[in-house]
Amino acid sequence: MRQTVAEFAIATRGKGLYELTDEVAAWVKAQGLTTGLVTLHIRHTSASLVIQENADPDVVRDLETFFARLVPEANSQNEKPLYRHTLEGPDDMPAHIRAALTQTQVSIPIINGKMALGTWQGIYVFEHRRQAQRRLVAAHAIGE
Amino acid sequence: MRQTVAEFAIATRGKGLYELTDEVAAWVKAQGLTTGLVTLHIRHTSASLVIQENADPDVVRDLETFFARLVPEANSQNEKPLYRHTLEGPDDMPAHIRAALTQTQVSIPIINGKMALGTWQGIYVFEHRRQAQRRLVAAHAIGE
Amino acid sequence: MRQTVAEFAIATRGKGLYELTDEVAAWVKAQGLTTGLVTLHIRHTSASLVIQENADPDVVRDLETFFARLVPEANSQNEKPLYRHTLEGPDDMPAHIRAALTQTQVSIPIINGKMALGTWQGIYVFEHRRQAQRRLVAAHAIGE
Repeated sequence: MRQTVAEFAIATRGKGLYELTDEVAAWVKAQGLTTGLVTLHIRHTSASLVIQENADPDVVRDLETFFARLVPEANSQNEKPLYRHTLEGPDDMPAHIRAALTQTQVSIPIINGKMALGTWQGIYVFEHRRQAQRRLVAAHAIGE
Repeated sequence: MRQTVAEFAIATRGKGLYELTDEVAAWVKAQGLTTGLVTLHIRHTSASLVIQENADPDVVRDLETFFARLVPEANSQNEKPLYRHTLEGPDDMPAHIRAALTQTQVSIPIINGKMALGTWQGIYVFEHRRQAQRRLVAAHAIGE
Repeated sequence: MRQTVAEFAIATRGKGLYELTDEVAAWVKAQGLTTGLVTLHIRHTSASLVIQENADPDVVRDLETFFARLVPEANSQNEKPLYRHTLEGPDDMPAHIRAALTQTQVSIPIINGKMALGTWQGIYVFEHRRQAQRRLVAAHAIGE
């Protein structure tokens, strides 16, 4: 049994989903593990990780639209302010909430030498801030 | 240290939760691991995995009702369409959103020969499509 | 390669987030693993685990406020009851839903002898019940 770690850097350009399936798959392949487990952990609290459909680009756009509606930036609704934490900008507290509603980490079994993703599954960084960011994803693989 | 992988197939019959705790527990037991880690990963983007109470069947029904209200199928709200991705039916984009709001994967420590689930915890496939489906869950166990 | 398991007990005093980063970090350090993977699993269905910002205490308060609004306790909205499962109190079914919307488990790579958490990331038990509770979190670490 052996293990290895790595870190991926993903440049984001505003709210939305950024796929990193290919980078992760190439790294997994390079480890030469037939059976094992891959874990990805995003090292931020205003971006998250999701596994989503990578066939129709409308899916990731609709996801962004839904989360923007569910967790509004506007700090008032019926007169009462929604957020106390506003110092880092109107998009920061909604970003933390969106991160809590999705995932910080995903683990995927390695079977027959590759991640057991379904046909349409892609791994995405879900960026919740408006500004461009450099997001770091820590990776761990174990197996043989 | 050793590891093993498997795949579970769960037949779903419309939206709602389908328990697979017993199948997974039996498989874990058959591996004969005293200490370890089990990971389950659902290979789909319109169904997900959740750990929920398995005592009162009303809990899983209330969960389904809540998610149906939070992520409506109807593609309009105050005149503006909610979803662009409508080609695969009115339940498909809501299914992707419901999957993003829950989990694609769960990992559970094995302690004293069995999964460290709480007394009332059950593992469920959360089906988000209307039609019957065959859902595949990849499993990985490591330990000794 | 070696592994170890443990259990953390967290006393909660009503809805909100309770940090356990330091306890987990101390335990990880005591294992002496340079590279590896830590997994935490909460053994309850009315509390959950989240990784959130631990710098500004307003963030965790805003999170609680958001979830209280998203998953109301009041069992009626426009005349129709929201929940069937009411026997364990008005906060129990909302607690299960809040747990489904967040995480039951987190896994974090160990790199250079410590968890690869970002600068502002803290690990929290998210309590969803009103009353004080004793929450158990099962932990597993593997590596070398």
